Amino acid sequence: MKKENPTAALIIIGDEILSGRTLDINTQHVAKTMGQLGIDLIETRVIPDVEAKIIHTVRELSASHTYVFTTGGIGPTHDDITSESVAKAFNQKYVLNKQAHFLLEEYYGKENLNEGRVKMAYVPEHADLIPNSITVAPGFRVGNVFVMAGIPKIMQAMLEAIIPLLEKGIEVKSQVLTAYTQESKIAAMMEEVQNEYIDDVAIGSYPFVQGGNYGDTGTTVGVNVVFRSQSEEKIAQSVRELEKRFTAAAIKFEK
Amino acid sequence: MKKENPTAALIIIGDEILSGRTLDINTQHVAKTMGQLGIDLIETRVIPDVEAKIIHTVRELSASHTYVFTTGGIGPTHDDITSESVAKAFNQKYVLNKQAHFLLEEYYGKENLNEGRVKMAYVPEHADLIPNSITVAPGFRVGNVFVMAGIPKIMQAMLEAIIPLLEKGIEVKSQVLTAYTQESKIAAMMEEVQNEYIDDVAIGSYPFVQGGNYGDTGTTVGVNVVFRSQSEEKIAQSVRELEKRFTAAAIKFEK
Repeated sequence: MKKENPTAALIIIGDEILSGRTLDINTQHVAKTMGQLGIDLIETRVIPDVEAKIIHTVRELSASHTYVFTTGGIGPTHDDITSESVAKAFNQKYVLNKQAHFLLEEYYGKENLNEGRVKMAYVPEHADLIPNSITVAPGFRVGNVFVMAGIPKIMQAMLEAIIPLLEKGIEVKSQVLTAYTQESKIAAMMEEVQNEYIDDVAIGSYPFVQGGNYGDTGTTVGVNVVFRSQSEEKIAQSVRELEKRFTAAAIKFEK
Repeated sequence: MKKENPTAALIIIGDEILSGRTLDINTQHVAKTMGQLGIDLIETRVIPDVEAKIIHTVRELSASHTYVFTTGGIGPTHDDITSESVAKAFNQKYVLNKQAHFLLEEYYGKENLNEGRVKMAYVPEHADLIPNSITVAPGFRVGNVFVMAGIPKIMQAMLEAIIPLLEKGIEVKSQVLTAYTQESKIAAMMEEVQNEYIDDVAIGSYPFVQGGNYGDTGTTVGVNVVFRSQSEEKIAQSVRELEKRFTAAAIKFEK
């Protein structure tokens, strides 16, 4: 039987993602990190810089997951409304945090601590700071919600600092078996093996094209079959089962 | 006053995004396309290949947006459960669509129409097909929900085919003003201009680093100030207002 891992949801806050101006790469980084920690990332949402939407989404996902992570909207400008919105989501006052103020003053110098920078020292009343090893201005944790910057390099540094605080589960390992054939030709075999290992292994099927794109001529098609499980032994067994079927059907494959 | 545009939500369905194995690039393409059509993309969600989750998410977002788009999970294999889940979300039977079956038979040949491929002809009972100019297997529309493939090139072809069916709004135009300074130094100026144009223009502030990364030495920092509005005139006015302030403060900038 599988152990139940802690769960997580991720909220990407930012008009720049929803306008298509910026490609979100934070989801992939958080997803990979959660996988290594054995925390199941159940859902991610991208929402705009709109207070009511932030409050609603934080409350809903906070109630239904072990952890919630947010990225974006904690900078010095008028459109950075995440911190105040999260304070409201938890019915906490939005206050100047002395420790954050001290850190910013030390980093920028008292004479350069303008209004925008001071804004970055405001967090919910009962928040704990998350250190930022890149540009000092901290993120914070309140309840089970971790509020991080949107800039990928800063987000990654904050997530690194959060890791020791998180309850770990059993890491989900994965193995890829690549078959050089059309997906529909191995669909039935994959389903048989999936049904046999339904409690222990999740088998995903991801077709690809080499040397061109879908619909081009002169390309090689293939399928990456991804086996994911907490148990390396179950992965190995189910991989062997599918290899046997590939061999019997004279399908070319490689690990 | 702004005209109310139609709204949209996007649901990315796929374990491969939530495991971090695959970087989602469909969100950005849908976002840009919606912007051009004057349809406001309000939210995107990434959810796993889990039936109950798909049903719940489709119902919730379908009830609160003009349009919902989904990507992923309509292929030939056991883990492609989107079509059947969407049928259940609409309380419709999941049936073989004769037109889809005909298209697939014509494309692959009767002798090659294996079980996996026939699966791709199953859609909700009252669905309309969305053509797929790349690999034939169609998407479909049911109610206000448009179900598309997850492979970017195929998704893009399907979205192209959908465009004529959508009610258009007023395109949101944008202009970027780049300031070569730290974000906090222009925060107050941006806020003044934002407040002056609060009903017509959304001003977003996106810092960047050139020639390195955050925390490196020898880099140039700057801010892309993005003005977004249905009115080009209001954008031009608000840009001029901010330019005036930059000039007065001797801040280097360019359009």
